[in-house]
Amino acid sequence: MAIATTSILLSFLILSLFVAEIYANRQVKALNILHKSKFRRNSQIDKSDFEVEELVLDGIVHSQEGIKEKDRILRLPGQPQVNFSQYGGYVTLDKFSGRAFYYYFVEAQHSEQTLPLLLWLNGGPGCSSLAYGAMQELGPFRVNSDGKTLHRNSFSWNNVANVLFLESPTGVGFSYSNKSSDYNTNGDKKTAADNYLFLVNWLERFPEYKDRDFYIAGESYAGHYVPQLAHTILYHNKKANKKIINLKGILIGNAVINDETDTRGLYDYLASHAIISDRAAYISKACDSSSSKILKSDCDAAEDETEKDLEYIDLYNIYAPLCKNTNLTALPKRSTVVTDPCSEYYVYAYLNRKDVQEALHANVTNLKYDWEPCSDVITKWVDSSSTVLPLLHEFLQNNLRVWIFSGDTDGRVPITSTKYSIYKMNLPVKTVWHPWFSYGEVGGYAEVYKGGLTLVTVREAGHQVPSYQPARALTLIKYFLEGTPLPGPPKRHA
Amino acid sequence: MAIATTSILLSFLILSLFVAEIYANRQVKALNILHKSKFRRNSQIDKSDFEVEELVLDGIVHSQEGIKEKDRILRLPGQPQVNFSQYGGYVTLDKFSGRAFYYYFVEAQHSEQTLPLLLWLNGGPGCSSLAYGAMQELGPFRVNSDGKTLHRNSFSWNNVANVLFLESPTGVGFSYSNKSSDYNTNGDKKTAADNYLFLVNWLERFPEYKDRDFYIAGESYAGHYVPQLAHTILYHNKKANKKIINLKGILIGNAVINDETDTRGLYDYLASHAIISDRAAYISKACDSSSSKILKSDCDAAEDETEKDLEYIDLYNIYAPLCKNTNLTALPKRSTVVTDPCSEYYVYAYLNRKDVQEALHANVTNLKYDWEPCSDVITKWVDSSSTVLPLLHEFLQNNLRVWIFSGDTDGRVPITSTKYSIYKMNLPVKTVWHPWFSYGEVGGYAEVYKGGLTLVTVREAGHQVPSYQPARALTLIKYFLEGTPLPGPPKRHA
Repeated sequence: MAIATTSILLSFLILSLFVAEIYANRQVKALNILHKSKFRRNSQIDKSDFEVEELVLDGIVHSQEGIKEKDRILRLPGQPQVNFSQYGGYVTLDKFSGRAFYYYFVEAQHSEQTLPLLLWLNGGPGCSSLAYGAMQELGPFRVNSDGKTLHRNSFSWNNVANVLFLESPTGVGFSYSNKSSDYNTNGDKKTAADNYLFLVNWLERFPEYKDRDFYIAGESYAGHYVPQLAHTILYHNKKANKKIINLKGILIGNAVINDETDTRGLYDYLASHAIISDRAAYISKACDSSSSKILKSDCDAAEDETEKDLEYIDLYNIYAPLCKNTNLTALPKRSTVVTDPCSEYYVYAYLNRKDVQEALHANVTNLKYDWEPCSDVITKWVDSSSTVLPLLHEFLQNNLRVWIFSGDTDGRVPITSTKYSIYKMNLPVKTVWHPWFSYGEVGGYAEVYKGGLTLVTVREAGHQVPSYQPARALTLIKYFLEGTPLPGPPKRHA
Repeated sequence: MAIATTSILLSFLILSLFVAEIYANRQVKALNILHKSKFRRNSQIDKSDFEVEELVLDGIVHSQEGIKEKDRILRLPGQPQVNFSQYGGYVTLDKFSGRAFYYYFVEAQHSEQTLPLLLWLNGGPGCSSLAYGAMQELGPFRVNSDGKTLHRNSFSWNNVANVLFLESPTGVGFSYSNKSSDYNTNGDKKTAADNYLFLVNWLERFPEYKDRDFYIAGESYAGHYVPQLAHTILYHNKKANKKIINLKGILIGNAVINDETDTRGLYDYLASHAIISDRAAYISKACDSSSSKILKSDCDAAEDETEKDLEYIDLYNIYAPLCKNTNLTALPKRSTVVTDPCSEYYVYAYLNRKDVQEALHANVTNLKYDWEPCSDVITKWVDSSSTVLPLLHEFLQNNLRVWIFSGDTDGRVPITSTKYSIYKMNLPVKTVWHPWFSYGEVGGYAEVYKGGLTLVTVREAGHQVPSYQPARALTLIKYFLEGTPLPGPPKRHA
């Protein structure tokens, strides 16, 4: 989630303090922490290209015998009846420091022995895949407004895959370490190494998935995590000269991938969507350029204007209503909107219940803090490469499937940013821009590039695409996993 | 409603033939007829600046004594109880040719003796203010899915004004002529003259409104009608050196006002909203420029791509669902969306009922054709000025209130077009771009220019703003009529 400017960052930071109450989306806060550090003048963050941390498999893979069955979730409190298996638990990454990552795994609703394995990662950095991916986006359940009971999401991605949700890095959600320095040494490199560590051990615990087709998907700052983990997998496969992990492709949405274009696209999006003035967008873009001759006072005025313009909307879905009342209801209420803007509060309440944590086999060490959608305990981010485009090139050369999607009403990492970033890759067009269809409507638009990269928009979806457009998102993931072009128009009757 | 290019026009024309069934909005058809004529190479349409047709009041105002009470609508079929008066009937413009315009007038729900008089005009050209304005947008009733009964629109603009809906020009809705040549000599100039003729006679019929503050509002191609009528009023007031009509201001929304910027803004909107590719937008803009060096084959390809990209969505609200079943229901169904995409069919059914026409005092001559939302009988458009910006300048110099609004999810005459057109006026900014509020949410954004022009966006509203955002539209018209800045943020609790 990138806004690559010092100026606008401070605005967001100030905003997040003021509007916390009316503005439910806690991802804002997480983003601001990173950006505050990344884009200030004397930033200590390493912005160089991502480099893999080499791991010796023999030393890091531990026996997982018998743990899988202990991880089986019999039933979540308030859960409706289902016909698939769920697991939850910890994978220890470092016995010495007691660093352990929490995962939640839902097997497919049918054909779980043949359908692929899909890892889902949320961004932030510092936000939980349990909070967003599993409980508000693509998981099988959503939390009711009572904070106690669940209802089914019929567009859950476990219709088409076995889905693994991971809370990463250290300090996110239920993932923790007993060594306190682990909380302030997080960064892109450590996250990728830890995610890899997690994965090889998890596959020991679930050996039936070892040779399964494997895909990684994620949104927002996972635009860093997903390619970096994929690169780490490819690296170790090559080094070992065998498919340690059978990686087939990646899918990233509304993803932070290239700071410079992410920023430029943001201003263009805000102006073309009538949120800020064209004048403020123009000045802000110029102010971000080092060669700018614009007066500081004009930059300040544009920043001021932008701050005020963004203050009262949910930038993650520019048309969404805001959460006005964060209290839980006595009984579940039926929401009239697809995504209740207060759903984050329901998830928070649910996942902090003792019975829920027990059922999930989570929080076994009794953390000193609440489970949070986005971490309050990660205080520092060590490295954040300014681009992941070289990694995407690498994947195409290695015949991995690479799809990049964008919910088109997200103002945070908007479609304009994603388009500009893809242009930077200089890929010739294979199939020109065209509408694709989901449940009889235009689901969005797609363009396919030579080399195998596909850009897909999801119409009227905010930052968390499967929250706002569950049906369209399910069509998207289905065709991605099948590796076939997205569906064309419905047949017309004569 | 302007797409100022030959190329894209044909696409739309072709589209309108193919998708008529899945695409309920008949305004498309009307637009295409105009554009087909206006932008082709050897267009016969006069595109020069609007000039008033001078009228001698004495000869054109006729006694209207006693007609008002005959026009009173006792009750519309299927109508819920209300506490305001409604009138409907004909004003004869030319006794010789039997040219007569149909109007529907709803008095304010309270203070009707002091609240202003507001004339609402729909565009097309050729679309009915009864079909859109009255029955689907800002009128007191909306038609149920049974095509027989009505329900209240609680955000009706007669909360704040006495609202007059006019079907104009000749051939629109119930407005007709006995002289067939009247149907193929319509154009901007004749429409303005006829609307003026209508107005002075209507004020004779309703003399209590003669000195009332008077405002004209409208959308789409009414971006031509409204300023041209306002200019005609100013012209005759000046000539007579008295306020024949007490015009105070105009309000136009998603309005066709300046062909060149309307077109440019359209492509920019479609690309930034991820409907067409940036490449197609870039080429199309260049192809429209006379100095273009782009190959015809590339222009054709871009046109082709754009056509396909637009084919399956409602360009008038890019996120709206489409009408999939045009059948009426046996009983009124409760719609889950703000605006039922099939509502045009309900209105068509309702207004073609004999009992409804009798109650409305409409179709007294038994027209040979059905009442249509947009005219099938207007076959030609004689003149359509390429810009109305000089008229807007005139109004500002004459201290008229000028507000221009834009529903920001309309792709037909989008906010980008409106902004570019306003920039052309070179007005310095008085109050910078800022959010405004309606019922506790951001209603949109506004910018005020020196000289008195105000630009207002309406968040998440399509082309027919009061259909998609009734509450926000009511806030907008209320503050426009009061002449006060739009409301700021709700107060925060400490």
